[in-house]
Amino acid sequence: MVRSFTIGLDFGTGSVRAVVVDCADGKILGTSVFDFPTGLGGVIVDAHDPHLARQNPADYLAGMRAAVPTALAAAAGDPGFSRDRVIGIGVDTTGSTPIPVDADMQALALDPKWAANPAAHAWLWKDHTGADEAAAITAMASEFAPEYLAVIGGTYSSEWFWSKIWRCLKVAPDVFAAAESWVELADYIPAVLAGVTSPGEIRRGVCAAGHKAMYSEAWGGLPAAEFLTRLDPKLAELRPRLYDKAWPSDRPAGTLCQEWAGAFGLAQGVPIAMGAFDAHYGAIGAGITSGTLVKIIGTSTCDIAIASSAGQAPEVPGICGTVNGSVMPGYYGVEAGQSAVGDLLRWWVEVVCGGDEAKHAELSVEAARLAPGESGLVALDWNNGNRTILVDPHLTGLIVGQTLQTTQAEIYRALIEATAFGARAIIERLNANGVLVERVISCGGIAEKNPLFMQIYADVLGYPMLLAGSVQTPALGASIAAAVTAGAKAGGFDDFESAQRQMTKIADTSYLPEPRARGVYDELYRLYRELHDSFGGMPDAQADFPTLMKRLLAIRRRAHGDHTP
Amino acid sequence: MVRSFTIGLDFGTGSVRAVVVDCADGKILGTSVFDFPTGLGGVIVDAHDPHLARQNPADYLAGMRAAVPTALAAAAGDPGFSRDRVIGIGVDTTGSTPIPVDADMQALALDPKWAANPAAHAWLWKDHTGADEAAAITAMASEFAPEYLAVIGGTYSSEWFWSKIWRCLKVAPDVFAAAESWVELADYIPAVLAGVTSPGEIRRGVCAAGHKAMYSEAWGGLPAAEFLTRLDPKLAELRPRLYDKAWPSDRPAGTLCQEWAGAFGLAQGVPIAMGAFDAHYGAIGAGITSGTLVKIIGTSTCDIAIASSAGQAPEVPGICGTVNGSVMPGYYGVEAGQSAVGDLLRWWVEVVCGGDEAKHAELSVEAARLAPGESGLVALDWNNGNRTILVDPHLTGLIVGQTLQTTQAEIYRALIEATAFGARAIIERLNANGVLVERVISCGGIAEKNPLFMQIYADVLGYPMLLAGSVQTPALGASIAAAVTAGAKAGGFDDFESAQRQMTKIADTSYLPEPRARGVYDELYRLYRELHDSFGGMPDAQADFPTLMKRLLAIRRRAHGDHTP
Repeated sequence: MVRSFTIGLDFGTGSVRAVVVDCADGKILGTSVFDFPTGLGGVIVDAHDPHLARQNPADYLAGMRAAVPTALAAAAGDPGFSRDRVIGIGVDTTGSTPIPVDADMQALALDPKWAANPAAHAWLWKDHTGADEAAAITAMASEFAPEYLAVIGGTYSSEWFWSKIWRCLKVAPDVFAAAESWVELADYIPAVLAGVTSPGEIRRGVCAAGHKAMYSEAWGGLPAAEFLTRLDPKLAELRPRLYDKAWPSDRPAGTLCQEWAGAFGLAQGVPIAMGAFDAHYGAIGAGITSGTLVKIIGTSTCDIAIASSAGQAPEVPGICGTVNGSVMPGYYGVEAGQSAVGDLLRWWVEVVCGGDEAKHAELSVEAARLAPGESGLVALDWNNGNRTILVDPHLTGLIVGQTLQTTQAEIYRALIEATAFGARAIIERLNANGVLVERVISCGGIAEKNPLFMQIYADVLGYPMLLAGSVQTPALGASIAAAVTAGAKAGGFDDFESAQRQMTKIADTSYLPEPRARGVYDELYRLYRELHDSFGGMPDAQADFPTLMKRLLAIRRRAHGDHTP
Repeated sequence: MVRSFTIGLDFGTGSVRAVVVDCADGKILGTSVFDFPTGLGGVIVDAHDPHLARQNPADYLAGMRAAVPTALAAAAGDPGFSRDRVIGIGVDTTGSTPIPVDADMQALALDPKWAANPAAHAWLWKDHTGADEAAAITAMASEFAPEYLAVIGGTYSSEWFWSKIWRCLKVAPDVFAAAESWVELADYIPAVLAGVTSPGEIRRGVCAAGHKAMYSEAWGGLPAAEFLTRLDPKLAELRPRLYDKAWPSDRPAGTLCQEWAGAFGLAQGVPIAMGAFDAHYGAIGAGITSGTLVKIIGTSTCDIAIASSAGQAPEVPGICGTVNGSVMPGYYGVEAGQSAVGDLLRWWVEVVCGGDEAKHAELSVEAARLAPGESGLVALDWNNGNRTILVDPHLTGLIVGQTLQTTQAEIYRALIEATAFGARAIIERLNANGVLVERVISCGGIAEKNPLFMQIYADVLGYPMLLAGSVQTPALGASIAAAVTAGAKAGGFDDFESAQRQMTKIADTSYLPEPRARGVYDELYRLYRELHDSFGGMPDAQADFPTLMKRLLAIRRRAHGDHTP
């Protein structure tokens, strides 16, 4: 039997990972990770503006150039592997991460003229500088184009395409003027690999377009020029230099050009799959089906569900988006998320406690010894705003219940719990709006490495927490997309379902809800919701703050075994 | 001219300090500090109950035995000093810190039979285990004896005498039964020095009695037996074994007995002043007058004011107490306080940040570089409950406004600010209820050592922050009480005013409010009050939580120099 292989390229917040995958069983034969050298952990930050987060496009190119050959060399350790049998390349990335490019499709930041200007770099997903612009877009769309909002949960986010471009227009008009077009990282990488030399030739994916740029065939592509003019006429002028059409994930983005074929040591012409976001391809790699919620838990969390596109598109208020074909053809892709999960723990352990990896492990062990409710703490998980269900980047963190004995580990656990409560709010919102969650599969670094975290999630969510069989679901999903793009005749697959059956599985490890812990967390979740709904400005918020600290102490007392009333 | 000297003994939370003072000018000629060896920093704690705090009476005795001779030896460095001219000994202590004693006036904990039982030890001021008892006392007094509450701000505290004794009766009835009587630390020490061998012979001070035990001559001493019976008949049975009469601070508690004269190397018969709380004698040492608020800022803060007893007793809701003669004869002593100030910073630096003294200094330097409002944080200072103005030990901490960039130093500063906001709430309450604050004099470790802290207080309170001229105001105040008790004929003084004129002064250093910072803090204080009033359960609380995080960010933006609306 002739074996086939695909390459998956996964562009994360701090690094790019290349994997070489066996199409027969999804096994990763070779892998290589390249850490982005620019900025703080690969991110350009600004001490005076906590909302700014940019990335250097040069890091992306250097990363691919380094990681792919290394992964291929590693795969060569398998005697059955052959470079000639690499039938496709798939790409997943963070997003919305738009990049300004010039008329030659070169990222502006690669031009020495712009290299020192943060606005000319990639506007990383977690950049929240466009909050005012997002609010204005939401307001304008509410009035003039409510259909744009219906499929993105009712609120346009500061993390997304137009907020960032408009922000650039306001704060760096020179960069805006110099940009021939703007390209999502998920589209930029396939275009670079395909040797595209003009922005007009880029084949853009519907995942980024539909979830972040208000693209839909229902209204003829991107938002109408009339609408953009209301925001700023210069955005309407930009529109024709963007795109008219976006493609689903089973269509090719192009084929490998000579330059990159040489760099990788592969044949020219290998099909390149449409780029998509890490969460969407991650969901495929995790084995998503209708009724499954896939949680990709890392620095942030992305939640992905799918619903058959035979029915009406689900409308879930406060959910990031519902886009036909964004995960796989034939299904609406539904995306939700939390803006800080691993980042929240990293903040606590590294920024506040001044620790490192060993400290993470130490606090995790200590926190695991605590019973639910024992710390007397409850926190909001909003240090980086709230992406779903409040869609408000201007929310901030809150911790309540501290005494003079409250420890690092207690707060560490309270922050994990806060993210679990945030996850529960999302699932409740999905269930209440026709996207039923029947099982939860998790993947991502935290899901793999932090059993305490996963047990808390099982107890808070009340679902068994299943784990994806691969530890590299986004890269695996990108490999699957590559295999589907290549097609069965070339040794791949003709559809995602067949590819998933062969190439994905569920891990043996899972975490079951523990009834006693569930009961305590049901109580704590109610307190969380009082804070969440009040400080989040929900119109039907109900809270009893005069008794909240007392109720926390009562939960704490019971957790310590004191059951006096 | 014949010189005179007095000894001041200051029993703090972690140590006892002995000073030898020159009556001519209040100069400290010799000083010695003894750290209490038992427990954590001198405090017996319970990992399962953050509200428990006890102390070992043996530490008090060992402390005096060590510190007094050392201080006297140091004073001998002054050629004009002579042991024969030590004309009195004064004692100040923490409180309410009641100690169960046996029929021979020995602290129960000194008996090997009880040494391992925390309930048999001294119930330190910050022990909050009697919270339920305090609430029940408040409820009962509201119904049957509202006059008891009028002079203690309307609420009986868990930190006080009866809450602790009743708690002991409930959780350790054997200790309660073994106790012949209960004695405040402030009365215990003078009685020990005077060689009192039976609880009935102790001369108790009106400071502890009036502020903590609901003692008043207006209703014939301690609460009536009928009232105590309503709490528990066993408390009524205890009443006759306590005391009928308490004495003001210019009356002697006794004279030095042979045993302790020998231990100190002093003559038998030296007068011992009535014991009082550290804050009250500290206020005298700081130069208190009518219109002056003295803040003793240490692990906690005690605020002391006085009002002429020619007028009616001021009634200030939520203020710890108003007791005729508790600071000095001829004035009502008014006491307020905050249960965690230095302790709150220590929690942050030592428990959470895992640092030591050097870390305190480092964070202080870093926090000083921040402009008011720059951190975007606001906190409640309730990690140890709220003593004044909410009188609720079951309140806990709260911090709001964290981002993923929030630093240790930002939270350190926010916690200082939180205590300053708490201090402002107290001053506003005093001013609104007829105890006008015209100037503020501070003393205590933090006031002396932390200029950042004092500047923040000046900016938040809007008063110049003056410093007492002595760094040992409680011990100095105790020395002044000793000089007044000895009397002018013996080389002391006939009244406190004359003694203060000679023996106290204001320091050259002071901190003036900076108008710009005041403006920012006025805004932040409003946010603090929204949280304070809501989470504290004030009936007229007004808060707009849906916009609170946004308003914090707006203050933050302006602090960063962004003045766009």
